[in-house]
Amino acid sequence: MSTAEQRVTELGLVIPDYADPPYGGRFGTVKAFHRVGSLVFLGGMTAESRDGVVLHPGHLGADVSVEQGCEAARRAATNVLGMLRLAVGSLDEVAGLVQLLCHVAATSDFDAHHLVGQAASDVFVDVFGPAGVATRATVGVPSLAGRNCVELVVTAEAASPAS
Amino acid sequence: MSTAEQRVTELGLVIPDYADPPYGGRFGTVKAFHRVGSLVFLGGMTAESRDGVVLHPGHLGADVSVEQGCEAARRAATNVLGMLRLAVGSLDEVAGLVQLLCHVAATSDFDAHHLVGQAASDVFVDVFGPAGVATRATVGVPSLAGRNCVELVVTAEAASPAS
Amino acid sequence: MSTAEQRVTELGLVIPDYADPPYGGRFGTVKAFHRVGSLVFLGGMTAESRDGVVLHPGHLGADVSVEQGCEAARRAATNVLGMLRLAVGSLDEVAGLVQLLCHVAATSDFDAHHLVGQAASDVFVDVFGPAGVATRATVGVPSLAGRNCVELVVTAEAASPAS
Repeated sequence: MSTAEQRVTELGLVIPDYADPPYGGRFGTVKAFHRVGSLVFLGGMTAESRDGVVLHPGHLGADVSVEQGCEAARRAATNVLGMLRLAVGSLDEVAGLVQLLCHVAATSDFDAHHLVGQAASDVFVDVFGPAGVATRATVGVPSLAGRNCVELVVTAEAASPAS
Repeated sequence: MSTAEQRVTELGLVIPDYADPPYGGRFGTVKAFHRVGSLVFLGGMTAESRDGVVLHPGHLGADVSVEQGCEAARRAATNVLGMLRLAVGSLDEVAGLVQLLCHVAATSDFDAHHLVGQAASDVFVDVFGPAGVATRATVGVPSLAGRNCVELVVTAEAASPAS
Repeated sequence: MSTAEQRVTELGLVIPDYADPPYGGRFGTVKAFHRVGSLVFLGGMTAESRDGVVLHPGHLGADVSVEQGCEAARRAATNVLGMLRLAVGSLDEVAGLVQLLCHVAATSDFDAHHLVGQAASDVFVDVFGPAGVATRATVGVPSLAGRNCVELVVTAEAASPAS
């Protein structure tokens, strides 16, 4: 059975490096992660590239289709993988995902938020297998910074507690 | 003094069984809970029955009254009790609630979100007594999956750490 | 190097006392904090004074300017400091901030949520130094209880585990 890092290679996922340039910067005074015991808390991740290009800005139910929203969720989830690598050194050091809180910029009559949340889950399950299945809540928001359509807040469990 | 499970019986609460059929399914690749140490993280719970019937779909401030929103919050909280049973085996194994994050589908001029959050808290306090009092944040959302009007994200503390 | 409590004095921050009158009351059945191990979970905090006066009610992108939203965020963050004092006895007993989830009441076309989140972070960094830098997610909401424009949900790490 292949490891998480091997699956990244097999899937051809391109994961951003949040060490170079260091995460934060244009977002203000934030850090990428905080470890307490075996818990790993990550900052909110959107579908932005490292130089700030937003994939599919706008709102589900209006100018962003479900398919585009799912694509943004997959990109945001791939960015989360980069944050996890930064936090614990290698995706092979991730014991599992704990919680996925998925915010979807949506109109008041949109009702398929769960499809966007599922697109993020798909990435985690592709990479981590059963350990990538998280508890999940997907909720609408009227707007996000930079007109992003998805923001993920992930908590994970590391294989070893923080030293 | 009666235990949490005894109070459920006294109150006549009907708590869904998330083991049969297994939780997830139509929601996608999600799990019901994740335990780390004594913490129990639960997936987002709405006021849906196990076969997907949504209680009071719509928006507070528009087509859902505060009374209906409170009823939906109580139903969602009762669903959370079912998730807690699944997670730790019995409500008597719950040491206390840690955090209740309550999302309320609401218009931009609605201002009584806390009443809906309180309706969820009422259920937890009825069942767990003082241990059911959680830290709480109740926030508006423009929309939720399936037109639900309430979604609860609960973290609890188990009486014994995960083995 | 000055301690967090010394910096509060140097900065002239006026931090509310959530012990007197006890936190909760008009908000319903809630508690201020929950400690598990070294984690400290806090209830959602807005820019309300202890007697319920809301600073800058309304929506970013409409009747609340970014400058006013930032002022509300700073007030809410100062309120969080009061909650942390209540939870662990002194700000000098806070090892660091873990997570800052910042909800901003906003219109659908507002796109500068991060500036409001940063205003909250500024307070924490002023008081705690590098330990005040948290993981952060800032998201829009259509409305909050009492027409508040900001609500912060903070998780912190205590210097000593809960006894």
